[in-house]
Amino acid sequence: MSKPLFDTLAIIGPGLIGSSIMRAARAQGAVRSIVTSSRSPETRARVVALGIADKVVATNAEAVQDADLVIVCVPVGVCGAVAQEIAPHLKTGAIVSDVGSVKASIVRDMGPHLPDTVHFVPAHPVAGTEHSGPDAGFAELFENRWCILTPPEGTDKEAVDRLSAFWTLLGANVEIMTPEHHDLVLAVTSHLPHLIAYTIVGTADELETVTRSEVLKFSAGGFRDFTRIAASDPTMWRDIFLANKDAVLEMLGRFNEDVSALTKAIRHGDGDALFEQFTRTRAIRRGIIDAGQDTPDADFGRPHGHDD
Amino acid sequence: MSKPLFDTLAIIGPGLIGSSIMRAARAQGAVRSIVTSSRSPETRARVVALGIADKVVATNAEAVQDADLVIVCVPVGVCGAVAQEIAPHLKTGAIVSDVGSVKASIVRDMGPHLPDTVHFVPAHPVAGTEHSGPDAGFAELFENRWCILTPPEGTDKEAVDRLSAFWTLLGANVEIMTPEHHDLVLAVTSHLPHLIAYTIVGTADELETVTRSEVLKFSAGGFRDFTRIAASDPTMWRDIFLANKDAVLEMLGRFNEDVSALTKAIRHGDGDALFEQFTRTRAIRRGIIDAGQDTPDADFGRPHGHDD
Ligand SMILES: NC(=O)c1ccc[n+]([C@@H]2O[C@H](COP(=O)([O-])OP(=O)(O)OC[C@H]3O[C@@H](n4cnc5c(N)ncnc54)[C@H](OP(=O)(O)O)[C@@H]3O)[C@@H](O)[C@H]2O)c1
Ligand SMILES: NC(=O)c1ccc[n+]([C@@H]2O[C@H](COP(=O)([O-])OP(=O)(O)OC[C@H]3O[C@@H](n4cnc5c(N)ncnc54)[C@H](OP(=O)(O)O)[C@@H]3O)[C@@H](O)[C@H]2O)c1
Repeated sequence: MSKPLFDTLAIIGPGLIGSSIMRAARAQGAVRSIVTSSRSPETRARVVALGIADKVVATNAEAVQDADLVIVCVPVGVCGAVAQEIAPHLKTGAIVSDVGSVKASIVRDMGPHLPDTVHFVPAHPVAGTEHSGPDAGFAELFENRWCILTPPEGTDKEAVDRLSAFWTLLGANVEIMTPEHHDLVLAVTSHLPHLIAYTIVGTADELETVTRSEVLKFSAGGFRDFTRIAASDPTMWRDIFLANKDAVLEMLGRFNEDVSALTKAIRHGDGDALFEQFTRTRAIRRGIIDAGQDTPDADFGRPHGHDD
Repeated sequence: MSKPLFDTLAIIGPGLIGSSIMRAARAQGAVRSIVTSSRSPETRARVVALGIADKVVATNAEAVQDADLVIVCVPVGVCGAVAQEIAPHLKTGAIVSDVGSVKASIVRDMGPHLPDTVHFVPAHPVAGTEHSGPDAGFAELFENRWCILTPPEGTDKEAVDRLSAFWTLLGANVEIMTPEHHDLVLAVTSHLPHLIAYTIVGTADELETVTRSEVLKFSAGGFRDFTRIAASDPTMWRDIFLANKDAVLEMLGRFNEDVSALTKAIRHGDGDALFEQFTRTRAIRRGIIDAGQDTPDADFGRPHGHDD
C-alpha cells in the first residue's frame, strides 16, 4: 500500500468507469476516502451494496464539497451541465478531471464554468468494456492501458503531475496531448470502429435474403467480433459522435475511399491487390500484441468447447 | 468412445481446419485410422511430431487411395486442382467433402472432376481462429459451432447422413442448404466483416495525422477488435473474395448505404437517429450469446490486469 495521493476523491457517476476508478483507487490505497454521487436511487443502492465507496450521496454538490480530486464520469453530453452544477461547491485547490471519450468538446463545455481556484485537467482512460453501470466495473480495468491527459495551456504543472501519479498508481500509462490531437487519434482507434460495427450489425439485421436466425447461428465466421462493440451504451456513443463530428467525418471519408479501392479489386478479380492488402494488415495485429494492448491467444482467448 | 463411423479418413491439407478435424476425430473415436497429405516437408514433419495422424504422406493420390472419407482442407482456389488430382485414385463408394468457406464455386470447381462412383458432399464448418497451420488446430474447435452441408441435388441421402453424423460426433450442429444460399449467408456473417476489418486496419495505418505507434497504443478503444480477423491468412481470404464476388459485392452495397445514412445523421447532428440505431444493434449481440455463439463475458473474456 502506497501513501495516499489525495485525501478525498469524488466520483460523479459511479458507472463502469467511475466504479472501476473507485475499486482501483481503494485497491491501491490511492486516496483516504471516496465519495460518489448518482442521480438515481437504484445506482446509489447498488454502490452501497457493493461497498465500493465510503459515502454515497444524492447530489453532485454534496459529493464535491470536501474533495481534493473530482472526477466526472458521466456521458460526454452531460459534462458541461455537471461542471456548472458543481462549480460553486468546489474546494479551493481541488483538481477537477473527467473520463470523457472526447476531449475538445469537454474543454469547451466544462472549462468556462470552473473557477480559477481549481485545476482543470481533462483525462481519458482508453479502457472499457461493452457493459455499463456500477456492477460492470473492476479494479484491473486500467492496468497496462493508456490514460491520455489533455491539460489546457497554462494548467498548473503540479496538478498535472498529481493526476498523472494517480493514474499511474491505478496501473495506467499516462500520455499528454492536445484535446484536438486526442480527438483525431481516438476517431480512428475507437470512434470509427464503433461506427462501422454499429453499421454492419444493422446491415445484417435488415436483409430480406438472410434471416436473423441465420445471422446469429453463423456469426462465428467473424460477424460476432463486431457485435461486442455494437452492444455498447447508446447514450454514451450518441454523445461521442455528436461531440467529435469533424474528426469522425474525416476518418469516415478515408475509410470510404479504402472500401472503394478494395471493392474495385474484388469486382475486377484482382487477387494480387487483395493479397497485398491482407498481408499488410497482419503486421498491425502483431504490433498491438507486442505493445501489450491485446492478448496473443487465438480468438481473444475466448472459451472453446463445452464451457463456451 | 463411440463405434467408428468410417474406417479411414484422409485429410488433404493438415492446417488449422484439417488438423482440428484429425484431433477431434481421434478424440471422439470417429474413425479407425487417419491419413494426411501435405505438399510441404515442413508441414509433414510438424504433423508427425504432433502425432495427430496415423500416416503422413507426400501425395494426395496416396492419401486417398484407401479412404472412405476424404476431406479437402486447402484454400478454396486450390480445391478444383486437388479434385482433379485425386479423382483417379478414389475408392468406390467413398465420400468426398471439403471445408471451403465458399460453396457454389467449390461445387463448380470440384464437382466435374469427381467420378460417379463416389459421393460428393461439400461442407463448411463455421468455426476457426486467426491462426494457421497444424499447430494452430485443436479438438474442441467445432464444439457447438455450425457445420453447413451443401449437397448437390440428387446426392445419395445415406452419404449426407453419414457426413452429418461425423460432424455431429465432432461436436458441431449440422445444417443443410443450397450452395448459393450458403454463399449469401456467409457473405454477411463472415466475408463482409473480414473485408471491413481489413479495410479499417489499412485506413488506420495510412494516416499522416496519426502515427502507427498511436494506433497501437490506443487500440483498446475498439480498434483492436478488428485487427484479429484482419490478421487471418491472406491466401485463404484472397480466394474467398474471388470465389464469392457477387454475394460480397451485394452485401457491400447494402453496407455502403447504411454507412451513408449514419454519416448523414452525424453530419446533421441527429442524435435521435444515432441513438435509435445504437439501441437496435444491442439485441443482436444478446441473440448471439443466447444462441451459444459467443461468450457473455465482458470483452470476450480477454484477460485483464497483470496476466494480459
Ligand atoms: N465505457 C467505456 O468503454 C468508456 C471508456 C473510456 C471512457 N468512457 C467515458 O466514461 C464516461 C462514463 O461511461 P461509462 O461507460 O462509465 O458509463 P455508465 O456505466 O453508463 O455510467 C454512466 C454514469 O453516468 C451517470 N449519468 C448518465 N446520464 C446522466 C445524466 N443525464 N445526469 C447525471 N448523471 C448521468 C449514470 O448515472 P445513473 O446510474 O443514474 O444512470 C452513471 O453513473 C463517458 O463519458 C464515456 O465517454 C467510457
Ligand atoms: N481458418 C478459418 O477460420 C476457416 C474456417 C472455416 C473454413 N476454412 C476453410 O478451410 C480451408 C483451410 O483453411 P485453414 O485455415 O485450415 O488454412 P491453413 O491452416 O493455412 O492450412 C491450409 C492447408 O492447405 C495447404 N495448402 C495451401 N496451399 C496449397 C496449395 N497450393 N496446394 C496444396 N496444398 C495447399 C497447406 O499446406 P502447406 O502446409 O504445405 O502450406 C495447409 O496444409 C480453406 O478452404 C478455408 O476457406 C477456414
